Amino acid sequence: MTAEYRLILLRHGESEWNAKNLFTGWVDVNLTPKGEAEAVRGGELLRERDLLPDVVHTSVQKRAIRTAQLSLEAADRHWIPVRRSWRLNERHYGALQGKDKAATLAEFGEEQFMLWRRSYDVPPPPLADDDEYSQFHDARYAALPTEARPRTECLKDVVGRMLPYWYDAIVPDLRVGNTVLIAAHGNSLRALVKHLDGISDADIAGLNIPTGIPLLYTLDADLRPTAAGGEYLDPEAAAESIEAVKNQGKK
Amino acid sequence: MTAEYRLILLRHGESEWNAKNLFTGWVDVNLTPKGEAEAVRGGELLRERDLLPDVVHTSVQKRAIRTAQLSLEAADRHWIPVRRSWRLNERHYGALQGKDKAATLAEFGEEQFMLWRRSYDVPPPPLADDDEYSQFHDARYAALPTEARPRTECLKDVVGRMLPYWYDAIVPDLRVGNTVLIAAHGNSLRALVKHLDGISDADIAGLNIPTGIPLLYTLDADLRPTAAGGEYLDPEAAAESIEAVKNQGKK
Repeated sequence: MTAEYRLILLRHGESEWNAKNLFTGWVDVNLTPKGEAEAVRGGELLRERDLLPDVVHTSVQKRAIRTAQLSLEAADRHWIPVRRSWRLNERHYGALQGKDKAATLAEFGEEQFMLWRRSYDVPPPPLADDDEYSQFHDARYAALPTEARPRTECLKDVVGRMLPYWYDAIVPDLRVGNTVLIAAHGNSLRALVKHLDGISDADIAGLNIPTGIPLLYTLDADLRPTAAGGEYLDPEAAAESIEAVKNQGKK
Repeated sequence: MTAEYRLILLRHGESEWNAKNLFTGWVDVNLTPKGEAEAVRGGELLRERDLLPDVVHTSVQKRAIRTAQLSLEAADRHWIPVRRSWRLNERHYGALQGKDKAATLAEFGEEQFMLWRRSYDVPPPPLADDDEYSQFHDARYAALPTEARPRTECLKDVVGRMLPYWYDAIVPDLRVGNTVLIAAHGNSLRALVKHLDGISDADIAGLNIPTGIPLLYTLDADLRPTAAGGEYLDPEAAAESIEAVKNQGKK
């Protein structure tokens, strides 16, 4: 069987809290004008390569939703079907949500800071349900039983809650031959890339996904990448951006 | 049985071709800044009345899609499920697409002009598939067999292609208890209102739906309006706007 599937991953661009260097997680902040421009550029890259999505999946967070809207409008694909799930949300950053990254680094030291940011299975302390930065009572999660709503997550938790949506919602869209776009977040996309490329729990720490640059995976009949790591539609910008993300919070 | 269903209709605001007084139909023009502001105001009215949609249906045309996006963002409901169909598109205006309304009035006279604009069953001449204003080869309609793609429509045609989507896609969303928003166009919404309120083929000519003002229908268990004509969330603005639409093309 020679089936090949086309999957495009797009990480949202700069958000208001990226710009302020705050941990965001499930807090529903908007894109900055720079983030909007990144989304438009992402759509232009899709159009230039004639990689036109037939369906888009997003998280339920504004920065991913608007990234999808702006990029698809730039690619003249604003009219395709849209599916959303909290399972594509950014990692819940627990008690770090709303905290300054540099201040957190200074307060807890680099070892603890990097453990929370990059360890596979150590979540930050949970966020209280009545914390001002909790989304526990947000209407968009109201249908979820309370025990299923995260108060904090490590990347392993994200893999666990993302994969059911991959298998049950995204894979069926690929199987019927659609070019599928996923507009999501640094960590929900890292979780998916970890799964697709079979990256170990240790090695995933070193993987950063740049913002606003579509990442194309061509998948074989068993949904394995035909080329490890996929292909960034703007490889030079991707390489630069990966360096920048690595240094976040270190200044 | 005391079931009551909540349906909200929202006609898109000013588009680039509304502003230029051109017949638009299936041409996929964008909103003007004024049209964007109308959409935002529509969303604010939803929020003020706590009429928060659980799901939104749109056409596959940019002006309705962006109206949905902008109004839902203003109501903090950008994250709800989205469904789209060409069956909610504006009426196809046939050979009038791209023509100036005032020039068409002058060329063909008021009787013919009003017949094309307001008669129930007289469509304008069909648009050639290779006309610059034809969407016949647009990717978003590629899955439709060619005989199912309109070249012109009268309002009766719009009722005929809209109703299957009402019954098969929108009604099921209402039946499970969702508050449903439909962001669409003057004539696809007139077609639905004609059906809901049981308006005669003759009387529908006199019905105009204002732009950007949510129109709430409360429907009984048999999907009939509990109050004929529904309720505009800003009745004064609605009354003013209805007058303005009536006089379109007459200047």
